[in-house]
Amino acid sequence: MAKDCVLLAAVSLLSAAQQAYFAKQVGNARMKYKIAPPSVTGSADFERIFRAQQNSIEFYPLFLVVLWTSGLFFNEEVASVFGLIYLFGRHVYFTGYKESTMGRIPGFKIGISILLVLFILSFFGITTCIIDKYFDFNVIKKISKLFP
Amino acid sequence: MAKDCVLLAAVSLLSAAQQAYFAKQVGNARMKYKIAPPSVTGSADFERIFRAQQNSIEFYPLFLVVLWTSGLFFNEEVASVFGLIYLFGRHVYFTGYKESTMGRIPGFKIGISILLVLFILSFFGITTCIIDKYFDFNVIKKISKLFP
Amino acid sequence: MAKDCVLLAAVSLLSAAQQAYFAKQVGNARMKYKIAPPSVTGSADFERIFRAQQNSIEFYPLFLVVLWTSGLFFNEEVASVFGLIYLFGRHVYFTGYKESTMGRIPGFKIGISILLVLFILSFFGITTCIIDKYFDFNVIKKISKLFP
Repeated sequence: MAKDCVLLAAVSLLSAAQQAYFAKQVGNARMKYKIAPPSVTGSADFERIFRAQQNSIEFYPLFLVVLWTSGLFFNEEVASVFGLIYLFGRHVYFTGYKESTMGRIPGFKIGISILLVLFILSFFGITTCIIDKYFDFNVIKKISKLFP
Repeated sequence: MAKDCVLLAAVSLLSAAQQAYFAKQVGNARMKYKIAPPSVTGSADFERIFRAQQNSIEFYPLFLVVLWTSGLFFNEEVASVFGLIYLFGRHVYFTGYKESTMGRIPGFKIGISILLVLFILSFFGITTCIIDKYFDFNVIKKISKLFP
Repeated sequence: MAKDCVLLAAVSLLSAAQQAYFAKQVGNARMKYKIAPPSVTGSADFERIFRAQQNSIEFYPLFLVVLWTSGLFFNEEVASVFGLIYLFGRHVYFTGYKESTMGRIPGFKIGISILLVLFILSFFGITTCIIDKYFDFNVIKKISKLFP
């Protein structure tokens, strides 16, 4: 069973490493801008890095949910590729936000677009699975019969 | 295997949409109350919406854990129904908190109650599964034999 | 299938209870130091407890990812034991941070070390699984053949 989701697991593990990297960046920024814990304000530069990480944390469980539901109910390879693009988008977001407030926008747009795509794939996959399981009607089979 | 957890996946996907909706509301509130990122203070109205979202984020992984453990180890349909009620409670919480600080309480109580129920179901399901697997003692079978 | 991950589920459920406990502690601290929601500042004592919880939230999805990937792709029992040590480390972190800013460090170090171990186990497990699935080369079998 584990074999059927190994790519999703690999993308998830990479995303966990990215989250750890972001957290480390905040720690480094605390040193650089001399913001002692528990404070999270006092320097606009620090606050941008902190908010960039906070925003990534906010979207992280949401990302994991759509990654796994699209991977399990639509297609594992497709979901994994989009997952990698999402992580790239988040990296662009973080490095952009670090530079300036406006710099967060390009990466943010990539991230949101990918989440939307994964959401739609999940929705499609889950819906066809529910119809198949509870109404005994296999949408995919019916469509493929139309094109023999 | 995916078929066995499709309802949990559906509730999870709905919950992801709700998290995205809350994040969008914070974005809209930033516009309305003119709170430019990375700042998160400056208007009591904005701060309530922001804290409502933050609190929902805090509870989100916890919710996913008890939803899936109760669904996999107790009963999928029961867990999914309680999951839906939780999402309803979170909606009441968010809209209530948006209006006033006290307005957060009814929805919060619904949410906490459902988490407690899902926790108890998970605990029961996991405990019987561990007893069955490691001590070769099937609690459910023994009980059903008492009532033939 | 659920039987194969019951220990991971048990550790996850325990971690959910810990997150709920941390959230409760922040609620209690709001009462004690009279910090009315939505405010999260105003008392250094409250801010430490609040940041301790926030930090635990930040690391929570990351912990769940490495716990499950190492449990599914390396070894369930090993992952579960390290998972328990992580929860212990987080408890030390929270109670230490509550007392003083420096008090957060020992528990934090335990937590980070465990995450690193689980990450390495996951990486090893996922890599061997991908090599086996996509390149039809079973690393574990080849190694065990060297020592017949």
